[in-house]
Amino acid sequence: MSATPVRALALTARAAQPAIAALTSAARRGLLAAMAAQLRAGSTTILAANAGDMARAQAAGLSAALRDRLYLDAARVAASADALDAIAAQPDVLGQVTRRETLPNGLVVEHQRIALGLVAMIYEARPNVTADAAALCLKAGNAVILRGGSEARASNAAIAACLHAALRAAGLPAAAVSVIGDPAREHVLELLQLSDLIDLAIPRGGESLIRFVAEHARVPVIKHYKGVCHLYVDRAADPAMALDLLIDGKTSRPGVCNAIETLLVHADIAPRFLPTALTALAAHGVEVRGCARTRAYADAVLPASADDYAAEFLDLILAVRVVDGVDAALAHIAQYGSDHTEVIATNDAQAAERFVRGTRSAAVMVNASSRFNDGAELGLGAEIGISTTRLHAYGPMGAEALTIERYVVRGAGQVRSR
Amino acid sequence: MSATPVRALALTARAAQPAIAALTSAARRGLLAAMAAQLRAGSTTILAANAGDMARAQAAGLSAALRDRLYLDAARVAASADALDAIAAQPDVLGQVTRRETLPNGLVVEHQRIALGLVAMIYEARPNVTADAAALCLKAGNAVILRGGSEARASNAAIAACLHAALRAAGLPAAAVSVIGDPAREHVLELLQLSDLIDLAIPRGGESLIRFVAEHARVPVIKHYKGVCHLYVDRAADPAMALDLLIDGKTSRPGVCNAIETLLVHADIAPRFLPTALTALAAHGVEVRGCARTRAYADAVLPASADDYAAEFLDLILAVRVVDGVDAALAHIAQYGSDHTEVIATNDAQAAERFVRGTRSAAVMVNASSRFNDGAELGLGAEIGISTTRLHAYGPMGAEALTIERYVVRGAGQVRSR
Repeated sequence: MSATPVRALALTARAAQPAIAALTSAARRGLLAAMAAQLRAGSTTILAANAGDMARAQAAGLSAALRDRLYLDAARVAASADALDAIAAQPDVLGQVTRRETLPNGLVVEHQRIALGLVAMIYEARPNVTADAAALCLKAGNAVILRGGSEARASNAAIAACLHAALRAAGLPAAAVSVIGDPAREHVLELLQLSDLIDLAIPRGGESLIRFVAEHARVPVIKHYKGVCHLYVDRAADPAMALDLLIDGKTSRPGVCNAIETLLVHADIAPRFLPTALTALAAHGVEVRGCARTRAYADAVLPASADDYAAEFLDLILAVRVVDGVDAALAHIAQYGSDHTEVIATNDAQAAERFVRGTRSAAVMVNASSRFNDGAELGLGAEIGISTTRLHAYGPMGAEALTIERYVVRGAGQVRSR
Repeated sequence: MSATPVRALALTARAAQPAIAALTSAARRGLLAAMAAQLRAGSTTILAANAGDMARAQAAGLSAALRDRLYLDAARVAASADALDAIAAQPDVLGQVTRRETLPNGLVVEHQRIALGLVAMIYEARPNVTADAAALCLKAGNAVILRGGSEARASNAAIAACLHAALRAAGLPAAAVSVIGDPAREHVLELLQLSDLIDLAIPRGGESLIRFVAEHARVPVIKHYKGVCHLYVDRAADPAMALDLLIDGKTSRPGVCNAIETLLVHADIAPRFLPTALTALAAHGVEVRGCARTRAYADAVLPASADDYAAEFLDLILAVRVVDGVDAALAHIAQYGSDHTEVIATNDAQAAERFVRGTRSAAVMVNASSRFNDGAELGLGAEIGISTTRLHAYGPMGAEALTIERYVVRGAGQVRSR
């Protein structure tokens, strides 16, 4: 029985992986820099392909938000190339010995980073994910199968062609970055069953895509799920700082997963904080949906439902609730949160520690904007996504999160039975 | 709609988890020591329950090997209590800050260990897993659901009663260690669907159990799968040392996953090594199945099939193959291995490095016995199993592998948009 096309592709990608893992640190850096150069050289071709995708998206009636994510211009392609250079410049993670210990019997035990193997990236819309995901996987010594959305098919193919040119120029198998261009959903289904070939699947996109992958996968999955992020303004907050964190978190880029969706305000500071905050939010065009106590401060505030508290609006909409303290804020987050990012504004160190300990989210910010929960902002260079799965990696995932530590034990003939 | 019994149990276990995570390091140590004391005090009761399980196992015609795994005596119960004391004495992992970095904008970024949450342990036969798994989960701040095999039902219940007594005495919810005693397989199926409540499922037992869990799980799974472990005797090996590693790896405990199943011998050393080795193996009652080149050294060697090279014998049987060098050994391991443990015997540092780099197994041993791939032997105190999943943890898993690192970011009002 011959392999199906998807299985054959995965077999070829897996066969290409050892060549990537075997590269020296300098050669891997050179490969990523060459990919960046190919992207810059291929910019015109990429933009022409993207124009085709955009025309089809318009004809198909895709939403403005989706079309914005799909859209590329010269600056976005250049930024993508810059990201590859940044990944190239990051310290190498592969082969790194993270611990070394000598046991009483003389055995030297090392924890050493090796590649995961073959990663399947299943994503939507934004074509820059194609280059970012490929570069991070290669940086960590992995091969990758990219399955982007059908709406970005031509753009993704043009970007992949640049990456392949760099691989070939380095004498490496292009299959280390394998692309499934065919939009049939059956291919994703089949990919997700290949537990003997694929070490990790990463879905990135809308909720329905992630649920589809989680539901059907027989391979390990790390989810990059919605961000229902909270800002809790404590009794001991500096109101001006809290307002900065609120406006930055809600309005600087409302369509992303680390934007603030719900504001929780301590009842004691609400009279000093909420009137100013509600005025500022209105000035920024933010629609506010609040609890009864919030609504006492402004007529324009609509009543918030439980659905509003659970919502990832990804828009200029904010849910607001007045709470009686840190514990009430934590209880609200435990009930409605998505384990993504939580922020406390406070000058009370004890309240801050209580908040940090009381939430299990991937990132907890004390007096800092939720918008910093991002690989580049937190020093990873770039990210393949922000994990909300409490396993392997939690929060922004860079190259290191695409490796695994294994044991290397060096002895002088030690045996266990005597 | 009220929750099913399994869902209700998981909800209660999850509700109990924060109380465990909130314990001080000293209180958690005290809890585990109290569990050890309860096991010692309850030894007679546990042994009586185990005698009942053993009688039913005998009546049901369970194999001698399974009955040996099921069997408890006073020494085994005492060893189990000692393991709990060892876990108690290990340094606390929870809350540990593994990295701290100050970014140019003044943000202090910490990686902090927190509990995974709720772990489901699905296992067979050995009742000591009940205490080990519970203790490691609690050490890392998790709650745990234990679903042991029906053959060990009374033993597991008696052990769990001791653990619950210690939890109650400490004023903690017994549900932090929840036991599903009902042997119906539907309960496991349902447990594996609870992706909103369970953070990790760990199956530990025979191949069919692990396949069942992997096939049906909608929650993350870390597999503890078979060990087809190899010893490669390089051209530059010390033959006496290599023989020690072979006899220890194959015969010291043939029924465990870190035993050697296949011996690979460099053709250049075969004339000096194999005759002595085959004689020693015969003296230890080991049946040898070899390639044609191996069989040239002894008439008693049966021919090895591809199935033999893929087999986890768990018995005094060994597959042997003569190979032409490190690369041929690595190719054999890539084809037949299970990513568990590989050993090279060599005095050639270059050959050792080539071997280490060329295999992706969870543990690679240079001049040390495969039998050292074990949590207690490698300094973890104890283990919940040996992961062969290349994600989250790879190799022996102790308490640290039952935590996840998340980001804590401390600022002074930093925002991203300006």
